[in-house]
Amino acid sequence: MGRVTDSTRIRTVRVREGRLYAGRKSDHVAVEEPLDIRLNGQQLSLTMRTPGNDVELIHGFLHGEGIIRDREDISEARYCDGAVVDEGNGFAQNTYNVMDFTTTRPQLLPLVTKNFTTTSACGVCGSESIDAVRQKSRYTLMQTWTVTPQIVLAAARALSDQQAVFARTGGVHAAALVDLEGNLLVVREDVGRHNAVDKVIGWALLEDRLPLRDCFLLVSSRASFEITQKAYMAGIPMLACVSAASSLAVDTAEEFGMTLLGFTRAGEHGDGRMNLYTHPERIDLAAAER
Amino acid sequence: MGRVTDSTRIRTVRVREGRLYAGRKSDHVAVEEPLDIRLNGQQLSLTMRTPGNDVELIHGFLHGEGIIRDREDISEARYCDGAVVDEGNGFAQNTYNVMDFTTTRPQLLPLVTKNFTTTSACGVCGSESIDAVRQKSRYTLMQTWTVTPQIVLAAARALSDQQAVFARTGGVHAAALVDLEGNLLVVREDVGRHNAVDKVIGWALLEDRLPLRDCFLLVSSRASFEITQKAYMAGIPMLACVSAASSLAVDTAEEFGMTLLGFTRAGEHGDGRMNLYTHPERIDLAAAER
Repeated sequence: MGRVTDSTRIRTVRVREGRLYAGRKSDHVAVEEPLDIRLNGQQLSLTMRTPGNDVELIHGFLHGEGIIRDREDISEARYCDGAVVDEGNGFAQNTYNVMDFTTTRPQLLPLVTKNFTTTSACGVCGSESIDAVRQKSRYTLMQTWTVTPQIVLAAARALSDQQAVFARTGGVHAAALVDLEGNLLVVREDVGRHNAVDKVIGWALLEDRLPLRDCFLLVSSRASFEITQKAYMAGIPMLACVSAASSLAVDTAEEFGMTLLGFTRAGEHGDGRMNLYTHPERIDLAAAER
Repeated sequence: MGRVTDSTRIRTVRVREGRLYAGRKSDHVAVEEPLDIRLNGQQLSLTMRTPGNDVELIHGFLHGEGIIRDREDISEARYCDGAVVDEGNGFAQNTYNVMDFTTTRPQLLPLVTKNFTTTSACGVCGSESIDAVRQKSRYTLMQTWTVTPQIVLAAARALSDQQAVFARTGGVHAAALVDLEGNLLVVREDVGRHNAVDKVIGWALLEDRLPLRDCFLLVSSRASFEITQKAYMAGIPMLACVSAASSLAVDTAEEFGMTLLGFTRAGEHGDGRMNLYTHPERIDLAAAER
């Protein structure tokens, strides 16, 4: 549980100036394990994730799917006792890969059924397909603040400095919530982009910090539709990604009233750059030269 | 349909030596749209993908899930007529975002139900969780050939040269099937890692090339469990990824008998490097200096 990297013996191969070199060394890889998410004893989803912060992950996932709103909607979260592997020595060990959440509101369950079972015939068609995966947020995103590009870049720099797991494995994504002074409130890493975001939003939900009006979400990866939607569900008015944004991320951020930044790249000595895709009014460009 | 990039107006922001610069320009983003996959009229899955090669994508997806084996298992593939958006001028246009596949073998359907509905109670637990997502391949991976690191690096170089969409957007993943002389047999790009792999395997299935014994799969992204499994299902004995491999990709590749390469990075003039995680016997290191 919580094992984030694993070590493995590898062979290294290098070609330089036409010559081939081979060696052996010990290397670190990011841990990926299945997490079986259950709600009231029923399997809801199986996600591949990096172990650790599973309770946050599942809270964030359930919130992003519109299944829960507050921490009070979950009365119990526990690793399933049945989830054991036989160690071959007469002992069995919990794998910590199955979690059961109990809801206090049984009325949530019809919602779950609606979201995760298949729909027959053409009830979901064309432009409605996207509506089928789109959740309705309780929050509207108002423009109540601005930040300078320098603050965004400082946060991007701090996130990259903190990406401890990435530094060792090159194989995980990070997500962070950042306040308006550029402080990282929480950082989580995971082999899955969505999981890292679910973990930080789940953390905020457990801290009773939703809606996250006075902060922004910073991700080391790309911005896709799903990341944009998870931010919107949590009331986050701005999403900054280190890599590219997809067309649907741009379209939905525009519609949600969300500021979307891509290619947020921090260099040395406060230098850096970013692209503003939507709602640039939250980025303070008053001091900019053109 | 087939619209792979979209153009959008953005603002560019740059900080250099403490000074802030802002500008405007037209930029390209990778297109992300939902694809609603139906089998015999029933919704099976909704995936976010880059439009284009949808028929290949769905064949590859169904094959990876163990639902179909051959192209003959699908008698018809068509975009759903009901998938239209009202253009507001009295005309409606097909969105090409809903596809219905018809199977010739109704006996496949119980399999589908098994795979995609929720399971109650602790039937899937612990080490069995991973078995629940693991499909049984019809193929075993035998070691019948070797390739030199130079061939792998030449293919990685060729893939990066061909990544036309990535060059424009920085936002898509690529997958390629490569023969033992380093030729790229097919290249596909998508905002989703899995989709790019499904597209190349779907292409091969439609070309009656399965099992893909005499080639390897090259991906521009990371190697996760799911990518490893899709390769295994198609009988591909080697997977080379440009980025990192996860712990579960390493464990399952070892068990499947698959050669797994990570950080496959091609430089100039044939130079480059790679890490060999599993089954290095397919990489010819006879000429290597130590």
